[in-house]
Amino acid sequence: MALPDAPDEFALIAELFAPLAADAPGAFGLTDDAAVFTPGEGRDLVLTVDALVEGVHFLANDPPGTIARKLLGVNLSDLAAKGATPKGYLLTAAFRPDTPFAWMRGFAEGLRLGQQAFGLSLWGGDTVSTPGPLSFSLTALGEVPKGGMLRRSGARAGDDIYVTGTIGDGALGLLAAQGMLSGLGAEDAASLAGRYRVPAPRVTAGPRLIGVASAALDVSDGLMADLGHMCAASGVGAPVETASLPLSPAAGRALAAEPSLLGTILGGGDDYEILFAAPPAHAAQIARIALETGVPMTRIGRLGEAGEQTGEKVRAIDPDGRIFIPNHLGFRHF
Amino acid sequence: MALPDAPDEFALIAELFAPLAADAPGAFGLTDDAAVFTPGEGRDLVLTVDALVEGVHFLANDPPGTIARKLLGVNLSDLAAKGATPKGYLLTAAFRPDTPFAWMRGFAEGLRLGQQAFGLSLWGGDTVSTPGPLSFSLTALGEVPKGGMLRRSGARAGDDIYVTGTIGDGALGLLAAQGMLSGLGAEDAASLAGRYRVPAPRVTAGPRLIGVASAALDVSDGLMADLGHMCAASGVGAPVETASLPLSPAAGRALAAEPSLLGTILGGGDDYEILFAAPPAHAAQIARIALETGVPMTRIGRLGEAGEQTGEKVRAIDPDGRIFIPNHLGFRHF
Repeated sequence: MALPDAPDEFALIAELFAPLAADAPGAFGLTDDAAVFTPGEGRDLVLTVDALVEGVHFLANDPPGTIARKLLGVNLSDLAAKGATPKGYLLTAAFRPDTPFAWMRGFAEGLRLGQQAFGLSLWGGDTVSTPGPLSFSLTALGEVPKGGMLRRSGARAGDDIYVTGTIGDGALGLLAAQGMLSGLGAEDAASLAGRYRVPAPRVTAGPRLIGVASAALDVSDGLMADLGHMCAASGVGAPVETASLPLSPAAGRALAAEPSLLGTILGGGDDYEILFAAPPAHAAQIARIALETGVPMTRIGRLGEAGEQTGEKVRAIDPDGRIFIPNHLGFRHF
Repeated sequence: MALPDAPDEFALIAELFAPLAADAPGAFGLTDDAAVFTPGEGRDLVLTVDALVEGVHFLANDPPGTIARKLLGVNLSDLAAKGATPKGYLLTAAFRPDTPFAWMRGFAEGLRLGQQAFGLSLWGGDTVSTPGPLSFSLTALGEVPKGGMLRRSGARAGDDIYVTGTIGDGALGLLAAQGMLSGLGAEDAASLAGRYRVPAPRVTAGPRLIGVASAALDVSDGLMADLGHMCAASGVGAPVETASLPLSPAAGRALAAEPSLLGTILGGGDDYEILFAAPPAHAAQIARIALETGVPMTRIGRLGEAGEQTGEKVRAIDPDGRIFIPNHLGFRHF
């Protein structure tokens, strides 16, 4: 733990953050300059970092607890998609001099809830002062059996494409949170906005996919973009069958009311589900993992050879045979 | 590596940051969502994080390369003082939309020089956009033999107090950089400002202190404050003999010209030297380590029993017997 810049940062650390480190003996109650961690035997460490900036990655009036849970969630989603079991995290928090202590308390409470849900501890951090937007950076660490980390590369033509949970809720939820989703009941809007604000990383399902999935990543940029990343890394192509897309009831009703939202569902981000490829021979095993973890895993297509052009590697086909090809500005519709 | 927010962040990562990850196979050229690291057998991992915010921790017109080296340096200084050998780091960089690419290139070049000097690689990162001050957060990871990490606690009454290198250059250098140090030659001013801008973490000396030092931390808040932290954690007290303080030639001349700068030297920060305690029986071994690493190690006092009051645990005594006792606003002078 870096030392605080001002006396009341001692209170901040002692009151709000030290309790989050209580379960990690190597964090020394955040009273030393560094943390120590003894990795499990035969384990690799998996590391990822993601930052959130006020006005860029979250809205200024988002509740502090949900910002904290999102910060933890986006990082744990990366770990989960790599097959890693979360162990601990280090946090940088840049608060303004006028950030109320109650706001910080709400933020710490969000971290506490996230830790409880996903089984990890705070190992260290740095709280700094900023004259600018609130900014947070979180480094998350997890473990996999040696050599087991799931990669973006490794998928082969003929592998099935799967996605966990439901797709599109994050992007629709952002619209709902901004009041830009008309013709939707209040309950549906709240449910979608909740999915946007508080990701539910698939921390139990991810590690089960080691040895089962041939490639995996989490859906953060949007289904088509992330599938494109996997295809590019693996040298394959991928048609997604839109009729197979797993939608939440709220997303299904939003799409029925406004069919053009299909582009948002395919292209939007913030789903934090796991997108993975697996040989067809693993289908029964995947069904069993889904059953045992309670995490739905839906087949949404099959990988083919790469198209001649990069832009055609990933496409979506709707039940009427219409093709959607993403480009970096959104989607061209044919 | 989190995915970039905008297309030109791909270029940023590919051109500037991926080369910094080339030596780390587990960073996958920053093309996956996480890095993997296989810890050495019988090794513990040591982790620390520190952030720098423009206008708070560095000056807006500081050269980008020195900001990068400072960011790396302050973190590696924490690792060094814990006895850890640096292995890798994860970086969050928040740039403004109008931050010139050349500035970022200078920043990356500073990281490259730091990596080269201290023997570690970039493992992952996140580049984000901010409307506010440039902000950087760096998580550094190192290794120690299992159970070997040096702690703030563990020092005992009767142990000698040592410090590596020279003390006060960082704080005097900040004054010099701001043109607030009058009566000093241009060369001395530049030398001190350089120490402030580019810390030289004691990465080779630190690991040698395992099994030798009873407690250690780096001098970042200021000698007296950091000695106070060690004393508080170890339950001891400490008189520092000001006549023993190792000063650089430039700092010595600054102090001779303006004796009141002693307060700045004792109380200022940013030295990034290692402050440690060791039993007197280890004196010869410490001298040998200093010789072999080329890092001066100077005895500056001896730990005693803790005073009755916390504020009196740490004091400095000058050759005339005058006592300096730090308080959180600076120093009371008796």
